[in-house]
Amino acid sequence: IISKLPQVGTTIFTTMSALSAQVGAINLSQGFPDYECSPQLVELVNQAMKDGYNQYAPMAGNKALRDEISLKVQKLHKATYNPDTEITITAGGTQGIFTTISAVIQPSDEVIVFEPAYDSYAPTIKIMGGVVKSLELEPANNYRIDWNMVKKLVTNRTRLIILNSPHNPTATILHQEDIEQLSAIVRSQDILILSDEVYEHLIYDGEVHHSMARYPELKERSFIVASFGKLFHATGWKVGYCLAPAHLMTEFRKVHQYLVFSVNSPVQQAIAQYLKDEDTYLSLPAFFQQKRDYFRKGLAETKFELLPSYGSYFQSVKYGHLNQEFDTEFAMRLTREAGVACIPTSAFYTRGTDHKVLRFCFAKKQETLDDAVNRLLDFK
Amino acid sequence: IISKLPQVGTTIFTTMSALSAQVGAINLSQGFPDYECSPQLVELVNQAMKDGYNQYAPMAGNKALRDEISLKVQKLHKATYNPDTEITITAGGTQGIFTTISAVIQPSDEVIVFEPAYDSYAPTIKIMGGVVKSLELEPANNYRIDWNMVKKLVTNRTRLIILNSPHNPTATILHQEDIEQLSAIVRSQDILILSDEVYEHLIYDGEVHHSMARYPELKERSFIVASFGKLFHATGWKVGYCLAPAHLMTEFRKVHQYLVFSVNSPVQQAIAQYLKDEDTYLSLPAFFQQKRDYFRKGLAETKFELLPSYGSYFQSVKYGHLNQEFDTEFAMRLTREAGVACIPTSAFYTRGTDHKVLRFCFAKKQETLDDAVNRLLDFK
Ligand SMILES: CSCCC(=O)C(=O)O
Ligand SMILES: CSCCC(=O)C(=O)O
Repeated sequence: IISKLPQVGTTIFTTMSALSAQVGAINLSQGFPDYECSPQLVELVNQAMKDGYNQYAPMAGNKALRDEISLKVQKLHKATYNPDTEITITAGGTQGIFTTISAVIQPSDEVIVFEPAYDSYAPTIKIMGGVVKSLELEPANNYRIDWNMVKKLVTNRTRLIILNSPHNPTATILHQEDIEQLSAIVRSQDILILSDEVYEHLIYDGEVHHSMARYPELKERSFIVASFGKLFHATGWKVGYCLAPAHLMTEFRKVHQYLVFSVNSPVQQAIAQYLKDEDTYLSLPAFFQQKRDYFRKGLAETKFELLPSYGSYFQSVKYGHLNQEFDTEFAMRLTREAGVACIPTSAFYTRGTDHKVLRFCFAKKQETLDDAVNRLLDFK
Repeated sequence: IISKLPQVGTTIFTTMSALSAQVGAINLSQGFPDYECSPQLVELVNQAMKDGYNQYAPMAGNKALRDEISLKVQKLHKATYNPDTEITITAGGTQGIFTTISAVIQPSDEVIVFEPAYDSYAPTIKIMGGVVKSLELEPANNYRIDWNMVKKLVTNRTRLIILNSPHNPTATILHQEDIEQLSAIVRSQDILILSDEVYEHLIYDGEVHHSMARYPELKERSFIVASFGKLFHATGWKVGYCLAPAHLMTEFRKVHQYLVFSVNSPVQQAIAQYLKDEDTYLSLPAFFQQKRDYFRKGLAETKFELLPSYGSYFQSVKYGHLNQEFDTEFAMRLTREAGVACIPTSAFYTRGTDHKVLRFCFAKKQETLDDAVNRLLDFK
């Protein structure tokens, strides 16, 4: 068999979680909580099964859930999405990303990707025969996007720009200036946007989440991907959604219906009920900010140098002043010797660029964070 | 936006289920049960959530579930699949099909498809730039495959043959002669097989399910797709699996990890427990055969002409002796006027070939089947 993805191995998340389990480390690598999701939400899933939500959900998703999402987006971003034609429930954020790229990318179409980037973007573009045009961002200037460089990357084959705010792995967020620069670029060339907003509610210090939904000129050309697993501490339930204007959503659904057809029905019904209480999501920034602050305070005592964290599950650190090991090797050594697993940031660069930066997930119990910090303090 | 699938609309399943709901018909169109799944299985899902199976399952799937599947396949087909490298849990059968095609089909690769066929095959092949080479089968000779015709379709670009037994929508099954003919063809040209076996346990009259797993020469080149939703009366849970030899599974997982990453975790854990009792699946043929026999007996009193049903959820009927309406129009009229929804078989032919055949799903409560038959008896 001739591989379509000869360069692809197992994702870094699988590799590091497996190594972590093997050596009994504290797993701050793959992004998932180690505390339980709401027992009330579990009971809602149980009730949905008892109420008979066990057969195919509608292809576009549970109607009550789409209605709740529409209300939430209206409330948060003053943006209108028609639940019938502009919202589709997906089997997690990753499926939303894959489906968007499948729906719009034809062979030799170009896609602009800012790196470091979530590791699914580039392989998915390649599966569809598209061309990845990546712009590498650097920790030295806090991963700011240089929009003049973006302009230079645009050609008449540029079909899509992928954005991600709050950002995985760097924990940066888009600002108002970015939105303006982005608007100028997409306007000139009729470029579509895939906006990965799975960490939409994990944003700190009172910062605003600049969703593409807020800006009519961007909204009309954007697929916005979101995740309930990330919000509700249940990454294993695999339910998220995609927002897009009707003419784009039509194309998304053409693929979605053949890719997965529909999504786990009891979980959809449960989340539709759970979302009725807006506190379920409005409470999230404070909940996660407390964890971020706590973890940063601990890490500040170690020899690592902290990078900022404005949003997401993640806190990155620099270690180049300590040693010059390749980040993947250092991450593995840290897992084995310190007993703390993390993700090496080079895994998020197509070219494997190594800035000596490691990513830790702080969506963990306080004891776990304490334990991890202590182990890192002990590490020589 | 230039559509990648300009000819594609909404699937016939969505269309007919929506019409059925709209006019209050009995929905025998889309294939799903109208009775409840096992309360014991529901309780196992609930328990799995309480036991904390709420974060990402491993990319390949819950280990206990893969072990149980391996045992089941060994027991039923004397076939060995290594749970670590040859079994992957999917978000339903459809995702297994999409992922297989994504993993192996490159632009201009040819895929042999027997029609009528499940409606996802052809669009998925097109999304990957492949070419559908379809062979139309006909009710007149009970949808038998003419293997001499297949030989003529094979070229040096033929990469994949898609099989489906028990078959949706025709309810036919593969026989020993088919296996021999198929072996001769794939052997000569190094062709891969995608075997859609989602109805594996829905097979009647003591017939054997000729899984590709049973024949080493076929097994070594086959992706076998299966579905727990179909087996355990919970089509809305969206958990299935794919079997393939390690060198093929490696390619499957490269796509799977970026397409959905992993699958609903509590459902996987629950099914792993449920499968320990082999009666959960060994009881299925008798359970469904009773429904098939009951429905056929009722339908025999109507003016429709019954086709055989050897397996699957489905019973088809011919109506050409009654009227010459296009099957889709007749199906819609039957839904509105008789109050019974079904699927027109032309929807399963790329060219929309109309043999005046309608498909009914009999995975329904006895009262539902009674009610549907009475409505069809009343229909003028
Ligand atoms: C889909 S596994 C990875 C989870 C995640 O988003 C991350 O760790 O970056
Ligand atoms: C995925 S919806 C269709 C269900 C089914 O297999 C059918 O009705 O043919």
